[in-house]
Amino acid sequence: MTTKELVAQIRKKKSFLCIGLDTDVDKIPQHLLEEEDPIFSFNKAIIDATHHLCVAYKPNIAFYEAYGIKGWKALEKTMKYLNDNHPEIFTIADAKRGDIGNTSTRYAKAFFEHMGFDSITIAPYMGKDSVEPFLAFHDKHTILLALTSNEGAYDFQTKLVEGKELYKQVLATSKTYKNSENLMYVVGATKASFLTGIREIVPESFLLVPGVGAQGGSLEEVCHYGMTKNIGLLVNSSRGIIYASNKKDFAEAAAEKAEELQNQMAQELQKTN
Amino acid sequence: MTTKELVAQIRKKKSFLCIGLDTDVDKIPQHLLEEEDPIFSFNKAIIDATHHLCVAYKPNIAFYEAYGIKGWKALEKTMKYLNDNHPEIFTIADAKRGDIGNTSTRYAKAFFEHMGFDSITIAPYMGKDSVEPFLAFHDKHTILLALTSNEGAYDFQTKLVEGKELYKQVLATSKTYKNSENLMYVVGATKASFLTGIREIVPESFLLVPGVGAQGGSLEEVCHYGMTKNIGLLVNSSRGIIYASNKKDFAEAAAEKAEELQNQMAQELQKTN
Repeated sequence: MTTKELVAQIRKKKSFLCIGLDTDVDKIPQHLLEEEDPIFSFNKAIIDATHHLCVAYKPNIAFYEAYGIKGWKALEKTMKYLNDNHPEIFTIADAKRGDIGNTSTRYAKAFFEHMGFDSITIAPYMGKDSVEPFLAFHDKHTILLALTSNEGAYDFQTKLVEGKELYKQVLATSKTYKNSENLMYVVGATKASFLTGIREIVPESFLLVPGVGAQGGSLEEVCHYGMTKNIGLLVNSSRGIIYASNKKDFAEAAAEKAEELQNQMAQELQKTN
Repeated sequence: MTTKELVAQIRKKKSFLCIGLDTDVDKIPQHLLEEEDPIFSFNKAIIDATHHLCVAYKPNIAFYEAYGIKGWKALEKTMKYLNDNHPEIFTIADAKRGDIGNTSTRYAKAFFEHMGFDSITIAPYMGKDSVEPFLAFHDKHTILLALTSNEGAYDFQTKLVEGKELYKQVLATSKTYKNSENLMYVVGATKASFLTGIREIVPESFLLVPGVGAQGGSLEEVCHYGMTKNIGLLVNSSRGIIYASNKKDFAEAAAEKAEELQNQMAQELQKTN
């Protein structure tokens, strides 16, 4: 998917919501456990109830990997369902991969080609030749970890490297990579005030923003500091939406929570008009 | 597996060789493609021919992930075969994972519990709460990326952070993590001279050293700068061993290459006596 198509979809749906599919068999409604593939059944119900309210889905790959082959089957089925029924929706493999060249190419093929994701999250620690293999794929997007929403972000990401915080070095250096126009960045909502400095380095790039809701980030602040004329934001919510209820009404409850966020997003979008 | 058991095995086999199972269907001998599971058949033949010469196997997870469910099945079969037949051998999931707390726990369960790996490689960028969930597993080892063997290592890892290179900050900071005794580190052989400085920070820790052979690192230098009284080294070779021949004699050819390295290692071990 092109960035232009993503922006068009955001304007049409008045939403830049990404729903995180962190599907955990211990947290989904009990009655689904009788189904043949409870993980897929849960995802399908969430997608059916929320696809008109969001522009992206982000399966958290660890949750699928934890169930071995059963988990990978559920993930492949989810991706096929999304690509068959809602090809306009942007899909993110939240995988945080990154390895030397020929290995990164393997990961890129697995997620972009084999599973049909539009994008993947990547850790920057190994530098240029670990990131560029992902950037080489046409109309696919590489979402580099810059400033994450967790406590441990302060261990290294915010430390000064040659007078500039490491996450800013990551932003600046990655702009020199080949096909850098295919880059997006992860910036946690819990650190919204950092967005001003980030926008100085990457004024146009899309940012994937986790941490609104469950982790305490504010949507209004994120938009205030981070929104661009082409929006440039995908705000993710996972648990706050998909586990809004663990009873038979879980899909409706998820849609309600998603709609709340979508309404707030519509208001934020109006401010920019 | 405990570190003590690993050291005992190294002394017994006179080897600290780790063989990387970067199994690529395009590179394995053609005649294996007729088998039901060519990836597993290849791995089994390599293991049967080399298990007495090495102390560790390191499947590169990307290579399996690239083949989807078929790849994961081959990986699970390989791990079952290793744990059933050679439980004394140390196994490394070269996965380079790392995510926020509850997600890292998922990855840890997938590799340590579900697949029975002894260890996993982890990227440090997200800091403490992304690493500690792996460290919480008893007698399992977390191999943190410190200084990798690729070109891109110079993008961020060697940059000065508060007067000290980032990879040294990673070493020093990680020592403060809970259960840090379960840490090992990745240090590329292509940067063997850096090992002196590394040993000042982590004098006892095991280092997983890729880059000997194909990537140009020297075994002698690695041992000179990096070996401790408990060895403290696992030196990996992947392509140089497993693709020594792509004909019917591939397993014997792999064993020959592994034996060459094991002989050199036996000599290095003798120097320390």
